[in-house]
Amino acid sequence: MVPSAFVVVTALLLRLGSANLADESELPSEYGSLWPLPQSVNTSPELYRLSEVTFQIVHSPHSTASVGCSILDNAFRRYFAYIFSVSARSEGWAPATSETSGSSAEELRELQVTLTASDPECTQHPRSTSSEAYEISVAQPVAILKSENVWGALRGLETFSQLVYEDEYNTHLVNKTEIVDSPRFAHRGVLLDTSRHYLPVKVILETLDAMSFNKFNVFHWHIVDDPSFPYQSITFPELSAQGAYHPFTHIYTLTDVQIIIEYARERGIRVIPEFDTPGHTQSWKGQSNLLTPCYNGEKLTGSFGPINPTLNTTYDFINQLFKEISWVFPDEYIHLGGDEVNFDCWKSNPRITQFMQKQGFGTDYRKLESFYIQKVLDIVASNLKGYMVWQEVFDNGVKLKPDTIIHVWKGAYQKQLAAVTAAKFHALLSSPWYMNVISYGQDWQKIYTVEPCNFNGTAAQKKLVIGGEACLWGEYVDATNLASRLWPRASAVSERLWSSAETTNLSDAYKRLSKHRCRMVRRGIPAEPLFVGYCDYEYKGL
Amino acid sequence: MVPSAFVVVTALLLRLGSANLADESELPSEYGSLWPLPQSVNTSPELYRLSEVTFQIVHSPHSTASVGCSILDNAFRRYFAYIFSVSARSEGWAPATSETSGSSAEELRELQVTLTASDPECTQHPRSTSSEAYEISVAQPVAILKSENVWGALRGLETFSQLVYEDEYNTHLVNKTEIVDSPRFAHRGVLLDTSRHYLPVKVILETLDAMSFNKFNVFHWHIVDDPSFPYQSITFPELSAQGAYHPFTHIYTLTDVQIIIEYARERGIRVIPEFDTPGHTQSWKGQSNLLTPCYNGEKLTGSFGPINPTLNTTYDFINQLFKEISWVFPDEYIHLGGDEVNFDCWKSNPRITQFMQKQGFGTDYRKLESFYIQKVLDIVASNLKGYMVWQEVFDNGVKLKPDTIIHVWKGAYQKQLAAVTAAKFHALLSSPWYMNVISYGQDWQKIYTVEPCNFNGTAAQKKLVIGGEACLWGEYVDATNLASRLWPRASAVSERLWSSAETTNLSDAYKRLSKHRCRMVRRGIPAEPLFVGYCDYEYKGL
Repeated sequence: MVPSAFVVVTALLLRLGSANLADESELPSEYGSLWPLPQSVNTSPELYRLSEVTFQIVHSPHSTASVGCSILDNAFRRYFAYIFSVSARSEGWAPATSETSGSSAEELRELQVTLTASDPECTQHPRSTSSEAYEISVAQPVAILKSENVWGALRGLETFSQLVYEDEYNTHLVNKTEIVDSPRFAHRGVLLDTSRHYLPVKVILETLDAMSFNKFNVFHWHIVDDPSFPYQSITFPELSAQGAYHPFTHIYTLTDVQIIIEYARERGIRVIPEFDTPGHTQSWKGQSNLLTPCYNGEKLTGSFGPINPTLNTTYDFINQLFKEISWVFPDEYIHLGGDEVNFDCWKSNPRITQFMQKQGFGTDYRKLESFYIQKVLDIVASNLKGYMVWQEVFDNGVKLKPDTIIHVWKGAYQKQLAAVTAAKFHALLSSPWYMNVISYGQDWQKIYTVEPCNFNGTAAQKKLVIGGEACLWGEYVDATNLASRLWPRASAVSERLWSSAETTNLSDAYKRLSKHRCRMVRRGIPAEPLFVGYCDYEYKGL
Repeated sequence: MVPSAFVVVTALLLRLGSANLADESELPSEYGSLWPLPQSVNTSPELYRLSEVTFQIVHSPHSTASVGCSILDNAFRRYFAYIFSVSARSEGWAPATSETSGSSAEELRELQVTLTASDPECTQHPRSTSSEAYEISVAQPVAILKSENVWGALRGLETFSQLVYEDEYNTHLVNKTEIVDSPRFAHRGVLLDTSRHYLPVKVILETLDAMSFNKFNVFHWHIVDDPSFPYQSITFPELSAQGAYHPFTHIYTLTDVQIIIEYARERGIRVIPEFDTPGHTQSWKGQSNLLTPCYNGEKLTGSFGPINPTLNTTYDFINQLFKEISWVFPDEYIHLGGDEVNFDCWKSNPRITQFMQKQGFGTDYRKLESFYIQKVLDIVASNLKGYMVWQEVFDNGVKLKPDTIIHVWKGAYQKQLAAVTAAKFHALLSSPWYMNVISYGQDWQKIYTVEPCNFNGTAAQKKLVIGGEACLWGEYVDATNLASRLWPRASAVSERLWSSAETTNLSDAYKRLSKHRCRMVRRGIPAEPLFVGYCDYEYKGL
């Protein structure tokens, strides 16, 4: 009784040139449940046992960090719990050639973490240039995790936790393994939209957890937009008082934001806020004289358009607001939006027409938009921040700082990436990774098979692609369905952005991702199933 | 940055000939948050207050039921809690013309429930012929809920709980109201598939709760299928021991089944189990010599096909199994499946070829299938059960008892319904209501606008359409995403099947359904949002 099901899945599988992935092979992946796949993995059949009573994750005596580097101390505690409470069952993943059984295996006593940089960055925030490289050597009697700084160590801890599994007697085992790993792209983000639906803080924290399980390192917080303004500004509290869905229950206070930033930092995740202007600002009504009043002929309609770019007060406001934002959000970058500006209201307003004439813009409202954006960019740059913008800002020829990141989100992305990088700007890809757009079947495969550097350009141009973001726009998403819509579909993006360009085998990916999604479920994330099957421990089970 | 979003939604809305439903009108529905809409609602601006301290739901002294009719006692307790902990906020729903404010309103002291039938059916199970009609009269000082028996009372309690709302001071209010209500269709079902993914018992119970909020009255339990056999049979325990995903953690014991049936009964929901044969039985491998061994030429391939219809042992097994099922599941009906039988394995098997010749079936394997189904139907009928079958059984010309229900699931459903009812069989519609099939945007509208009686046929034929079912097949659904995928999309089916055929206004439905989904969220069901907006109390909020 499942006609569409069968047809669609079959079509999808055929289109991607793969057989029924669920049945293709009973053999597990040689890489177990590792996700995203490290750059280099060498596993031996030699097995070690881990005891929950005696096993420890510790700072190596040779490390430049020690107890008191609380970002690591917390991570040790967190991963100890993941390892011993929620490891994968061995079935279908312990290398079949293991020489020893769990009961006769030698013991792995410790995971020693060694940081090598003179400043291990215990109290810093991750940056776009932070190294996330690490190496793991699992060998008796101690395993070694080595990295420059805390950021690589966090990635390595996740990988180590994915190496441990349980045999049928619940003994925790790990194979002798050597891993050398680092990300292919530096910017691996997830966008959440807290304007179309308000997302409670705990939903955002849960998402940050899941991001860390997938080695994502940027939370792009699309915090305000037309429908609501949940950010409670210290300087302009009327913005949320009048623009949020509810002025007390549906806002993010300064403390909320700080908790989210710190929770993200502890997982090696940058928080980049987006305050999109001059469009997408209908909810900014708490600031008077900011939005453009629309006219019908000579009469005010009572409705408002984009931010009014013709008033000095606008730039005073923008200056003060972005000063605050620059202080609240420590990341070096702010996302300034700049997309989808509707010119109708500007066109209707006689004062704007006047201004256009005075500036010699004719009737080209893109020039007015650029005039505005240019000023905003200069303000943000004066706050010593870099900026990201949606692709329209580039398309419209606004003068941009050389380190500007152009966020590609529409049209044929290969063409856009070629154009952006030809102009020597950094590019970030999202067009094929709109997680809110759903269809029936295994659509993770379509997400997975995107190759960001598959465009016409020089090697130098391709180096300008700094990564991508999985975007979850909020029209149809709130706390009820966010996690199951995002995971594990966004995991497909995470492997594409972390692992080597050669990591493209769909059948192997299916096997690892199925296990990875069950691990996410055990860690409390309601990641949805890829296809028919089961997890040893079901969500809400027993 | 939401191109597909915008395009798809706009297209959908245009196609359905409606404006942007979210913005179309700020006015609330005159029917508040009622869902599904009762047949007749008369609301007055006169308001009454309800006190959590003194308000009671009680058996009327004139009722044929009294304390000790525990199905009602439990429902009183449940709805008291829903009324006082999770009522909708008044904003946008209290009739604007209310004469009195909450603080000056008179008090509503009681809801008196009066059953009129000499046997109110307190200890019985709901049946396909049970009356669910009820009347509510809310007037000072007591409200009256009147019905024949407990089933109508349960529906009326849900409706009464939907009438109560809170004003801005959290005072619970209800308008003077008269409601006369009964369902348009007798069979309003939800199908869950526990074979493709195992669903923990608490997920099924949660679904039964949500079903009762939507006045669904049949849980069609597609309990076993190819991928797994989670039903633990007392007579044939090897079926789940060998066929379940895990013989202990991924099964339904007799106690589990009984808990589910009782939980459903308390909500006026019938439980109809489906044991689909002869296809969809790959997981029935725990019974030896049941499935057909497949051949490649003269050699056994080692794989198996549908149930072997040529052996007497097959029918002994079927007889014993269905005797048990008939005892475990008290409903008068069993769903026997009969869909999608693949003939390849039967064709390959020399003994089956022999049997075909002996029976004079030629090479028409549909005759063999009908031979099998006919025998199963007779066995089930001998256990005094009625049966439901998927449409193929009808299409293939199997001789059916007159009270057989044909479940329409594929092809042009108007044509199928016409054919089935022309043959004087009862018909049940599911084709347009596959909840597992998803697409981007407000697809609840497409679900909602289906009209089951929109086919060529006489009035007598249309009476044979007994209702429909929202089917949630399990390829891509498990405990992680079941609730948010099913609700509120299945609510669109519930209103179509309960309310009058004239209840078709999409804009009014949007307004009521938005509030109804927020109420489900407050009652613990993660029903996903219809579109941009918010609930007073978000899922996982604060």
